[in-house]
Amino acid sequence: MAGISRRRLFGLGAAGVAAAGAGTLAVRSLQGEEAGPTTATAAGSGTESAAVPFYGEHQAGIVTPAQDRLHFVAFDVTTRDRAELVELLQEWTAAAARMTQGQEAGALGAVGGLPEAPPDDTGEALGLPASGLTLTVGFGPSLFDDRFGLAGRRPQALADLPKFPGEALLPEISGGDLCVQACAHDPQVAVHAIRNLARIGFGRVSVRYSQLGFGRTSSTSRSQATPRNLMGFKDGTANLKLEDTAMLREHLWAAPEDGAAWMAGGSYLVTRKIRMHIETWDRTSLTEQEAIFGRNKGEGAALGMAKEFDEPDFAKRGPDGQPLIADIAHVRLAHPSSHGGARMLRRGYNFVDGSDGLGRLDAGLFFIAYQRDPRRQFVPVQLALARQDVLNEYIKHVSSGLFAVPPGVRDAGDYWGRGLFG
Amino acid sequence: MAGISRRRLFGLGAAGVAAAGAGTLAVRSLQGEEAGPTTATAAGSGTESAAVPFYGEHQAGIVTPAQDRLHFVAFDVTTRDRAELVELLQEWTAAAARMTQGQEAGALGAVGGLPEAPPDDTGEALGLPASGLTLTVGFGPSLFDDRFGLAGRRPQALADLPKFPGEALLPEISGGDLCVQACAHDPQVAVHAIRNLARIGFGRVSVRYSQLGFGRTSSTSRSQATPRNLMGFKDGTANLKLEDTAMLREHLWAAPEDGAAWMAGGSYLVTRKIRMHIETWDRTSLTEQEAIFGRNKGEGAALGMAKEFDEPDFAKRGPDGQPLIADIAHVRLAHPSSHGGARMLRRGYNFVDGSDGLGRLDAGLFFIAYQRDPRRQFVPVQLALARQDVLNEYIKHVSSGLFAVPPGVRDAGDYWGRGLFG
Ligand code: HEM
Ligand code: HEM
Repeated sequence: MAGISRRRLFGLGAAGVAAAGAGTLAVRSLQGEEAGPTTATAAGSGTESAAVPFYGEHQAGIVTPAQDRLHFVAFDVTTRDRAELVELLQEWTAAAARMTQGQEAGALGAVGGLPEAPPDDTGEALGLPASGLTLTVGFGPSLFDDRFGLAGRRPQALADLPKFPGEALLPEISGGDLCVQACAHDPQVAVHAIRNLARIGFGRVSVRYSQLGFGRTSSTSRSQATPRNLMGFKDGTANLKLEDTAMLREHLWAAPEDGAAWMAGGSYLVTRKIRMHIETWDRTSLTEQEAIFGRNKGEGAALGMAKEFDEPDFAKRGPDGQPLIADIAHVRLAHPSSHGGARMLRRGYNFVDGSDGLGRLDAGLFFIAYQRDPRRQFVPVQLALARQDVLNEYIKHVSSGLFAVPPGVRDAGDYWGRGLFG
Repeated sequence: MAGISRRRLFGLGAAGVAAAGAGTLAVRSLQGEEAGPTTATAAGSGTESAAVPFYGEHQAGIVTPAQDRLHFVAFDVTTRDRAELVELLQEWTAAAARMTQGQEAGALGAVGGLPEAPPDDTGEALGLPASGLTLTVGFGPSLFDDRFGLAGRRPQALADLPKFPGEALLPEISGGDLCVQACAHDPQVAVHAIRNLARIGFGRVSVRYSQLGFGRTSSTSRSQATPRNLMGFKDGTANLKLEDTAMLREHLWAAPEDGAAWMAGGSYLVTRKIRMHIETWDRTSLTEQEAIFGRNKGEGAALGMAKEFDEPDFAKRGPDGQPLIADIAHVRLAHPSSHGGARMLRRGYNFVDGSDGLGRLDAGLFFIAYQRDPRRQFVPVQLALARQDVLNEYIKHVSSGLFAVPPGVRDAGDYWGRGLFG
């Protein structure tokens, strides 16, 4: 049937249609063309449509003020050929350098090149601006097995995460040899970028899992207002931010003295897909909701304080003699003072994946955190939360990812992971 | 353990915390307050944050210029009590009238009311503007079985859809007694609205399935530019639009003479979740892609024409004597001239639901079409497509929905479906 359809479609053959139909389209490329916002789905304000620089000391998408939308993907590498993997990283780097600047993934674009060949870009972002797109690549622990001769280069900080009490991880949406975090103000732009990287990677990588996040739950810059997570609370108030240069050096960026010299200027990424039992949460009293977090819901202020950015005072007690912020409140358990000063940069997204077949929305937080060493940052904090946080009655960790995120690409001659493979 | 945690959390009991912590929050409601855009996730331009009127002759969300984001939900009614169902529709109408105007779902809001009671709104949209939110309700064929005494009131136009060749429908994501289509420029606002309707419906309805759409694939007004679907083509060029008043009367709105007087001013909704094999599509040549649709990819013009909105000329032939637009091209098969003038208002959304466990993205089109009578509009067009469209090699219909969408709510004394139940 396919054969018949195709003959009917093309008449005397593809060449005929190419000449008569598609042939009316001049071969053209959008490279270098101004990719201005269209009225179609332009993200709105100038800042939201602008491009974020791709080259730099660190990868973009970490301290970049958190964009509104996420498409995160983890890949399995299917080739066993190291040279092919390196070639893929080079091709990805080139495509990312283009796409983050609002250009198509390949120089011939979606409507250029030979009409008989598949387009060099899938086309669904044609005419859309860069929309703040960042693409951030990470290497999972499994990449350092014996396939690619990298076993000796695995950073100590990329130590497998321990098993945490209560977690219910699904292996098929955990792990991954490689990951790409695409963030943008327009979801079409984030989806387009991941799809084109998957297309370019065909035969060398396959998608292990992917996750759409529809709204940021964190601020990574003091220029941003704090958004709300699906429990209705402001999230990202107490976070490492772009402006905290000294703290970023101490808590975020891997340094030469950490070992694994190829990671200097990079960071370590932990992802956790956290399902929320939102129906149960929605039947919980306001008092209990606020006690669980240790912050109030309206303003986001620590209990006992007036304003969102007032420092919590953990010593403060109420008239009943009890601490205003309970000893097992989320913000106390997670606070740097409970973990020898450990901080991380949180950059999570709300998700809704439809419903769960039991009459409930399948929704929650796709938690993303960057840090210098998960063994001293994510792990102790999550251990404390997993053991004591009352929030655990309302959430379930269903996936986990750990990735070494190499430093930035310096220029057009550089590529993602050159320090590791070069 | 929960008991212990809770004692540790609340110290001497909930009252203590309420007095000391949450009690610092005055009881307040956002009703009537100006819900201005925040810098947090405000949708951008003024038009995008504005409110769409809720009351009117027709429900909003049909000819309303298609907003960027979708959260669609189908509910099963779990009560068998007709009065309870009517009460639910009244409560939903009141909540929708508030939420579409940028207010919280209930008058006490997320931080008002009694601290010991669950909030009257889930809170995650606190501080966000209305963002063009529309909520559009529909009644599925199953609502007209013998549970609620409605069997005699089922409109003839709500005839079950036939089985179409090639479809692979999953019952768990098809059908539904009730549906709500939430569209907005901010996904957080669309998600929040559906969630609050589900919360209000607790014990009377349960979520059957829900679907997030991240970007519109259609224009429903001449004021909008045409967006692109995930095949990279402009979608919505030839569509019924807001401005086509006479055609809307003929093709979109149910009229008294159609029978089922309670539906006059309403419309019939067909939804189809259509999975795309995007990896296969991405390896198809540009010529073939354009021949399949009968339009070119860059401009969106019908083959042989110059501009997007030039009328296709189906008689035009190429130098080889073959029609420029093949007889089985999508736009020819779907064109009104092939179906006695039948038109519909398409209003679909792109979706990505993660990946499919086979290394591929689970992505496609959540097709939404409104019309006066599916038996004369969707059904014949889809039969032609299902039988002949070469697109079928790249897509699969996996869910189907059919709903009678009643007319608009006239004023605060009216409610969704009053004509049916009243
Ligand atoms: C669904 C799960 C979670 C929710 C809903 C949630 C929510 C919140 C909220 C509302 C705050 C207070 C506002 C702020 O400062 O950002 C907060 C703070 C924080 N959370 Fe979470 N969180 C979750 C999971 C986690 C996890 C898994 C970690 C890390 C293991 C974590 C680490 C932190 C940290 C470090 C802070 C800041 C504490 C401070 O310095 O005051 N959270 N979270
Ligand atoms: C994944 C599936 C589909 C894709 C990718 C798709 C895509 C397109 C595209 C690109 C166009 C041309 C631009 C335009 O005029 O909007 C179009 C036109 C149209 N499509 Fe589809 N479509 C799909 C499924 C359907 C279905 C299921 C129906 C209805 C049964 C339908 C009905 C129409 C109609 C009525 C037109 C306008 C034809 C005209 O008047 O020129 N499409 N579609």
